[in-house]
Amino acid sequence: MKLFTLGPVEMYDHTFEVAKQPVPYFRTPEFSAVVLECEKLLKKFAKAEDEAKTVFLTCSGTGAMEATVINCFDEKDKLLVIDGGSFGHRFAQLCEIHGVPHDVIKLPYGTALKKEDVYAYDGKGYTGLLVNIDETSTGQLYDAKMLSEFCKKNGMIFVVDAISSFLADPINMAELGIDALIFSSQKSLALAPGLSVVILSKKMYETRVQGKPAKMMYFDFNSHIDNGKRGQTPFTPAVRLIYELQDMLRHIDAEGGVDARVEHMKQVAADFRARLAETKLSLPEYPISNAVTPLYFPDGNAYEVYETLKREYDVFVTPNGGELSKTVIRVGHLGNHSIEDNKMLIELFKKVL
Amino acid sequence: MKLFTLGPVEMYDHTFEVAKQPVPYFRTPEFSAVVLECEKLLKKFAKAEDEAKTVFLTCSGTGAMEATVINCFDEKDKLLVIDGGSFGHRFAQLCEIHGVPHDVIKLPYGTALKKEDVYAYDGKGYTGLLVNIDETSTGQLYDAKMLSEFCKKNGMIFVVDAISSFLADPINMAELGIDALIFSSQKSLALAPGLSVVILSKKMYETRVQGKPAKMMYFDFNSHIDNGKRGQTPFTPAVRLIYELQDMLRHIDAEGGVDARVEHMKQVAADFRARLAETKLSLPEYPISNAVTPLYFPDGNAYEVYETLKREYDVFVTPNGGELSKTVIRVGHLGNHSIEDNKMLIELFKKVL
Repeated sequence: MKLFTLGPVEMYDHTFEVAKQPVPYFRTPEFSAVVLECEKLLKKFAKAEDEAKTVFLTCSGTGAMEATVINCFDEKDKLLVIDGGSFGHRFAQLCEIHGVPHDVIKLPYGTALKKEDVYAYDGKGYTGLLVNIDETSTGQLYDAKMLSEFCKKNGMIFVVDAISSFLADPINMAELGIDALIFSSQKSLALAPGLSVVILSKKMYETRVQGKPAKMMYFDFNSHIDNGKRGQTPFTPAVRLIYELQDMLRHIDAEGGVDARVEHMKQVAADFRARLAETKLSLPEYPISNAVTPLYFPDGNAYEVYETLKREYDVFVTPNGGELSKTVIRVGHLGNHSIEDNKMLIELFKKVL
Repeated sequence: MKLFTLGPVEMYDHTFEVAKQPVPYFRTPEFSAVVLECEKLLKKFAKAEDEAKTVFLTCSGTGAMEATVINCFDEKDKLLVIDGGSFGHRFAQLCEIHGVPHDVIKLPYGTALKKEDVYAYDGKGYTGLLVNIDETSTGQLYDAKMLSEFCKKNGMIFVVDAISSFLADPINMAELGIDALIFSSQKSLALAPGLSVVILSKKMYETRVQGKPAKMMYFDFNSHIDNGKRGQTPFTPAVRLIYELQDMLRHIDAEGGVDARVEHMKQVAADFRARLAETKLSLPEYPISNAVTPLYFPDGNAYEVYETLKREYDVFVTPNGGELSKTVIRVGHLGNHSIEDNKMLIELFKKVL
């Protein structure tokens, strides 16, 4: 089995070594030390300020998105949501459900987000911006620097769901002034699903979280942050995933840290894209993340190719839903992938097309 | 390492075999079949009616308790909550946070819930009852039959958090008229933490869930039930835990099913309790679950014993918090435990006391 999917992704052998161990009791100083080490390394890799707060949630990425909306915004806000695919649309739906006033920048499929799309909302009293910096459903990587400058100019809270982008594309929480960075275990961290993380800026914590009454118990950031001071969580965490996380972060740190990891991802993605010249598949015109290559199938047989690769070769690419299922599949580069894997997949595409 | 804790618990070798496998892509008919098999076996073991609905949530037990309160109750309800320990108290807090009117039957520590405590609320317009059938913080096993009759007499919704009781004590959802049964992966199922399940009665689904607008996205029962029809979840589930669950349920089924499993748990717990005569430790006077034996330490050295067992023998019992930390520890029997383990722990108690 070989996964070119977007979560779960192709995992590393050292993760399996951790996964097969007994799961220990966790209300101990030993487990607290593991949590605190994970926090330290995650903040280092996110290039977060020292005073940033880390919240470990046992949930999917959507749970972490919803937790952020619930904890950090309310009916007095006026948010801007980049809706360029199903995950951006989900942020808008979350604002809707929780009664947070918002407007949406809706991008038709295939179009890049431009500076003027965003600056049309300049100086109009928006209090925050929500973006999936790599819109995983299309692979579009938005311009974090441009969005950061817009937020700074307008004094807006800047929420970045980096679920597939963290460790795949460059990100610098402190420099970009990101107030919440969201990601999950089953993407670039290449672990099993079930753990999500939200890193909050000092500003976000002090102005929007600290001292606020809980709107719900399970996702309450204050109880997570308070328990987190001693390396614990308010409720039973995904203990095994925390151990896998520690192991993975140590490996990344030992292999040159986040910059080396992102550089590796860039090389793998660039290599794959260069090899597409051997096929009749083509790339979109918008900027794309190192996490994923969306491929256009001119003959409308994208879903058949997905099914053939799965059935005949036990190789999984990521199909699209709805109208795009015939013309687009996404090739994920996250996790344990090499240039050799790219060669193999390109050969398979040539064979089945 | 040997765990007599209450989650994570001592796991089985066959679970480690599943845990070390690569986690596959899950939007496939193959994964759907796994989910549907888990649903079928869980309903069988819970003795649920055929039309019961199963919700798989990626969260802790508290998340599942909160999801049930959010989805099934609102400000028009008047609930009764059995608060006989920290988990019962949590149900009351959840009602408070979500604006669900409720009254609390508060049990002082060490006292059994009696029929008259409950019938004091008879005929007073209560719409539902929330109970942790084994209050895990004390080990008290409430009388499910008595509570069931009270709910039936009063036409009340009956919510049972069976987090540590499911598969350890007898339960029959259909006969008892339980409308929501809640449990998690890291208790009697002996898997890693991170997966919780809520089984809803047909009545609960049709009168309190179906067609209701979502109050939140991540825990919305309707989207889970709709996706569940084809064996899927609305968001990335704890894929690896679902495979571990399938494996565990198959093992239980092959070894005589839920009744054989509960009988085994009963024997292990009874054996341990009989051996206490060799020590000066004593049992509480209230009825207790097969899941856990709370032990009273007359010399006030309970926490020291916990620490000594951990440090010297790598054996973990479950300490209590607050005032009880000196006098009470809990010995969990959930998971992979035998009579030999009981003998070993009793010998250790005799040695360190």
